[in-house]
Parts: sequence; structure tokens; C-alpha cells
Amino acid sequence: MLTERIAVLIERDKTLQYDIDKKCVLILDRRKLPEKIEYIKCYTSEDVAKAIEDMVIQGAIPIAYAAGYGMALSLVNYNKKEDKLKILETVAQKMKNTRPTGSILFKVVDKLLQIGKEALQKNEDPEIAIVNEVKKMILEEQEIARKCGINASKLLDNDDTILTHCLPGPALYYMLEEARNQNKNIKVFSTETRPYLQGARLTAYILKESGFNVTLITDNMVAYCMWKGIIKKYFTAADRIALDGSIANKVGTYLYALIAHTHNVPYFVLGYSGPDKNTPTYKDIPIEERDPNELFYLKGIRIAPEGINGYYPAFDIVPSKYISSIITDRGIFSPYEMKFYYEGELK
Amino acid sequence: MLTERIAVLIERDKTLQYDIDKKCVLILDRRKLPEKIEYIKCYTSEDVAKAIEDMVIQGAIPIAYAAGYGMALSLVNYNKKEDKLKILETVAQKMKNTRPTGSILFKVVDKLLQIGKEALQKNEDPEIAIVNEVKKMILEEQEIARKCGINASKLLDNDDTILTHCLPGPALYYMLEEARNQNKNIKVFSTETRPYLQGARLTAYILKESGFNVTLITDNMVAYCMWKGIIKKYFTAADRIALDGSIANKVGTYLYALIAHTHNVPYFVLGYSGPDKNTPTYKDIPIEERDPNELFYLKGIRIAPEGINGYYPAFDIVPSKYISSIITDRGIFSPYEMKFYYEGELK
Repeated sequence: MLTERIAVLIERDKTLQYDIDKKCVLILDRRKLPEKIEYIKCYTSEDVAKAIEDMVIQGAIPIAYAAGYGMALSLVNYNKKEDKLKILETVAQKMKNTRPTGSILFKVVDKLLQIGKEALQKNEDPEIAIVNEVKKMILEEQEIARKCGINASKLLDNDDTILTHCLPGPALYYMLEEARNQNKNIKVFSTETRPYLQGARLTAYILKESGFNVTLITDNMVAYCMWKGIIKKYFTAADRIALDGSIANKVGTYLYALIAHTHNVPYFVLGYSGPDKNTPTYKDIPIEERDPNELFYLKGIRIAPEGINGYYPAFDIVPSKYISSIITDRGIFSPYEMKFYYEGELK
Repeated sequence: MLTERIAVLIERDKTLQYDIDKKCVLILDRRKLPEKIEYIKCYTSEDVAKAIEDMVIQGAIPIAYAAGYGMALSLVNYNKKEDKLKILETVAQKMKNTRPTGSILFKVVDKLLQIGKEALQKNEDPEIAIVNEVKKMILEEQEIARKCGINASKLLDNDDTILTHCLPGPALYYMLEEARNQNKNIKVFSTETRPYLQGARLTAYILKESGFNVTLITDNMVAYCMWKGIIKKYFTAADRIALDGSIANKVGTYLYALIAHTHNVPYFVLGYSGPDKNTPTYKDIPIEERDPNELFYLKGIRIAPEGINGYYPAFDIVPSKYISSIITDRGIFSPYEMKFYYEGELK
């Protein structure tokens, strides 16, 4: 049975819930995992927006669904149709302003705004319509992750040791599970992923709990591990994929992609549902810069001296030339053919 | 006036003392800086060796002098000449076994063993002879660092922002001080340097206390900073320099040298007194691998889940092709002419 701790990687619906009776969004606080299972209760859309900004929930896809539940929540204090429409539009914009780099947020919020408007037009309850749509999206996304992971498993060879950075979401789990089913012996090296240590606290923990062989290294040890020939393949997720096959992901992703390139280690992106239609190139991806004070603390303890400056870009960009393949639910793409992902849909 | 905290970067004799009356070596505990000023008292050579192994004292040069004082300490319980000779040889070997990557340790220990033997032959006190020689070496080393720093300052341009990793020792301070005297405005970006956070706790702290402009980043943010064009030059020290112009230094040094190379950022090594005569190429440098448990804790707090593996190489190697210059007390060398460092001496 999956615990909430493991669910962060595998079953997202377990970590984010909408309580239709209590009018409350429950969000598992990722910052406290794996030591503590604590849910933040959000009773307003402001609470949800703040939880996203404060990284209670993390990852491009999970924050999008949290934002969606926040939109539903914003409707409960209004009775008039025009008020509901107005607040929905306001909150949609507010949610889009929470974190700028991941693209799924924008896609999901726009879709839910449309769903809400349609419900209002049809005199249906927009709160229910939005909540049901989010639930449907989460299930669809789970299936996308599973397909992506199974496709990615084709790239693994027996006795591979792979590197990953941050928490690449359920596709990583499905990839490793599929490889295990095929009797492929795979080892995973996980970076710590400062400043939030997602690699140490989440990826390493969950993989260990799921019975995979996982080794932790600090963020500065990757080049040495590749120089030694330990790492055979490098896998991450992406917070946004541009149509030109470049991506944005957790800061450090580009660092290791360059190092992988130098050491002839292929870099594979777990690309889930593919590129963002509204992002032609990496130049169209804004990189979020967060409060440098967040660097100065670790588990609530000050680790840096007072009075210094800090700089905290939360993401970096990997240009397509450093990406070997982008693996999606629809198959394995060269970054240069990423724009054809939607072809089937468009035909 | 310099505090012990700043002295770690600038005046090494303040952080390591030999008490000739109490027969005790006092070592400032770097692991607790800058919050706490705590000296470890070593009454035996075993205590000193353990302090080196446990990283109470760090850096290729400081550990060599601590080892020297440990050799002196080993003599105090013996009266017979042959016993003193025997213990000196045993302890010299023990000190060499503490940490394998830095080369100054071997050079200093061999020199002090010779000094001790000569004193015994001349019926002089070898303890005094060794202690005096270490004190002399520390002063000479201070002058080497000053010259290295002043030479390095020639490579700085006004308004440069430089990157450094770990604690590059007094040459960094002298370089920045000389640049300041020349009215060059220099900013420093310092990596945290996991797992011991020397960059955050020591480099950033000391530079700030000395009035320099310093900005902290986590170890995974370097590539983004170079991509953005923020970093103009990259400087580190080296735990060992081979005659082929390659170096070993704190793990991560190679990672950033590669990234610097890709982004046309020159990488300069603060090379102090030059290469190790007994190390022809980087292949002759053993890389210390430490207990992975050290990765799992930060300031005494467990930051990684139980039951996972860890891997902790403490250094990495930068081949000469990724090094722009090696700056020594005798001038600025291309890595490919590093072997000529001793030419004046050999002539």
C-alpha cells in the first residue's frame, strides 16, 4: 500500500484533495517530507496561491491542479452569476502570477476558466464543474505519466546507473518499475537538490521505499561521477518544454546536461504531455528568481552568515542541443521534432 | 584587528598553535565557524591525526602544518635518541596516511622528518627544531600566498564578478585586497560547497567581514549564472598541482571548470608554491573518498532519509585543458608550462 510519502512521486491525487463539504483544499506539505505528514488546509483561493508560492506544493503539474482547486474554492462565497464570473477571472489571473516558469499552470487555469464559464452559461454549478474537471485531469495525467515512464524504460539497459536531479514525478517511478518487470537491474544516483533537498528528501526516500537501489550525492559531485564512468544516463523532468525542444527545469538541470554532454552521457527528458504550444523557444521561458533568504536556511536552521547577499534562480534552461531525447506519452522524440508532438491532434 | 574567524582565510598561524610548555597543539575547529570559536586541544600525535581526518582543520596547506606539530608532539614522551627517531618515522607515516589527495602534506612531513633526524644527529632537541621549522614554513607560506594573490590581481578587471568554490585560502584575500587598492570594483559569487559548506560559512563570511561584496549561491546554480553572463572569471585554489598542469581540488571544482570552459569564462588556479615534483600527471593523484554518512548530516541534523546509499568523493580533478592559468608566487603560468616552475631553482 502506498503511503502519502510515496504518493508524492506516484499518485498525485493522494497529496491534493478538494473537500466539497467543508469547502477546503488539503495540500500535503512537501517541505516537511519525509519526516512529517502534514496537510495544509486552504479555505480561500488566497491560501492556495500562498501555498503554491511558498512551495508547500511543488512541481509544474501538481501546482497547476492546486491552482485549479483554488479557483473552485473562490466561487463558494458568491451567489450571483456575474460575481462568480468576475471572481473566477480574477483568481485565474492570480493563480497564473504565482510561479512563472512552469507552463502547465497556464494551460490548466485557462481550461478551467473556460469550464467554469460554460457551467455558468448552462446554469450549472461552476465549482462542481471545475473540481470534477481537475479530478479528471489528475487521472489523465497519471495515465500520461505511466505511458511516458513505460516509453522511457525502453532507453534503459541492464546494469545502467542513471542520474536524476530534483523530483521527476511519477514517470520516473513507472520507468523504473517497468525496467524491474523486465528484469533490468538499474541503479539511481540522486542529487541532493539544494536548497529544498527534493532529491534527498523525496526522490531518494521514495525510490528506497519502493525497493530501488538509490545513492545520494551532493550537487557538486556530478562531474566526478561522470568522469569516473559511474553514470550511464541522465534523466530529469521538465517544468516547461518549448516547441524548439529546449526545456526549463529545476536549477542545476542545465549544469548536469552540459557535463553529461562532455562525458558522452545521454540526457533524457521525461516530457509527459509534451511541449507548451505557446512557447516557441527557450527565449520565451521566464526564469523565476526567488527570495535569496530561502538559500540561507536549511530545515529552519541558518546555514549562512548574516549580512551577505544571495541569488536564487529557481530554474535553468537546457537548449535542445544538449538534449538526447524527450520522452512523452506519445513516444520518444528528438528535441528537434518536439514540435510534431501535436501533429496527430492537429491532423 | 583580525578575529580568529577571519584569520582562517588570512593568517594561518592564528588558527594553529603549538604550546611548548603544555605540550599541546591547539587547532581552531573550522567545522563550527563562523558561529563558534572553539579550539581542539591535541595532546598526542593521534589526536592531531584524528583532527585532520575528522576535518577539524581543512585545506591542503593547514593540514600539513598541523601534521608537523603532531610530529613534534610525538617526541615528548621519549628520552632515548633511538626511540625518538623511531617514533618520528612512525608518526610521519601516520600523518601521510590521514588524507591522500593534497600534496603539501607529504612535502612538509618529509622535510620535518629530515629536520628532526638532523637535530638528533647534532644532539639538539628535535621537538624544538620541528616546531621552529613549522613556524618558519607558516611565515614563508604567508609570503607565498601574498605574492600569489598580488600576481592574481593582475588578471582582474574593474567591475569583474568572479566565482569561487570552497575556501581558496589567503591568496584570494590578498588578490581582492590588491584589487581594492587599485580601485578595482570586484564582486565575488561563492558556492555553498556542500557537504561542509566552507563557501557559505568561511569564504562568504570572511569576505563580508573584510568589506568585500559577496553573494552566495547553491552549488547547482553556477551554470545558470554563467549562462546569464554574470560570472566573468572563476578562481579556486588547488589541493595538488601535477607537473602536467592539471590539478585536484574540492569536489565540484572540475564541474565548474567545464561549465566555465563552455561559457568562455577563464578558470584561474591560485597555485601558491606551484606543482608537486612527485606528481607527473593527474593520473598520479589519488582521490579521497570519505564516509558517505558525512553527506547525510548538516550541522548535526539528518537531512537524508535512513536506509539509502551515499557516495562521497572529496575532490575532483581538472585536466590542464580546462585551466586558463595557474598563478603562483613566481608569476602566472600556462598550465602547460607548470613544469618550468622549478627551473630557476634547478638552474
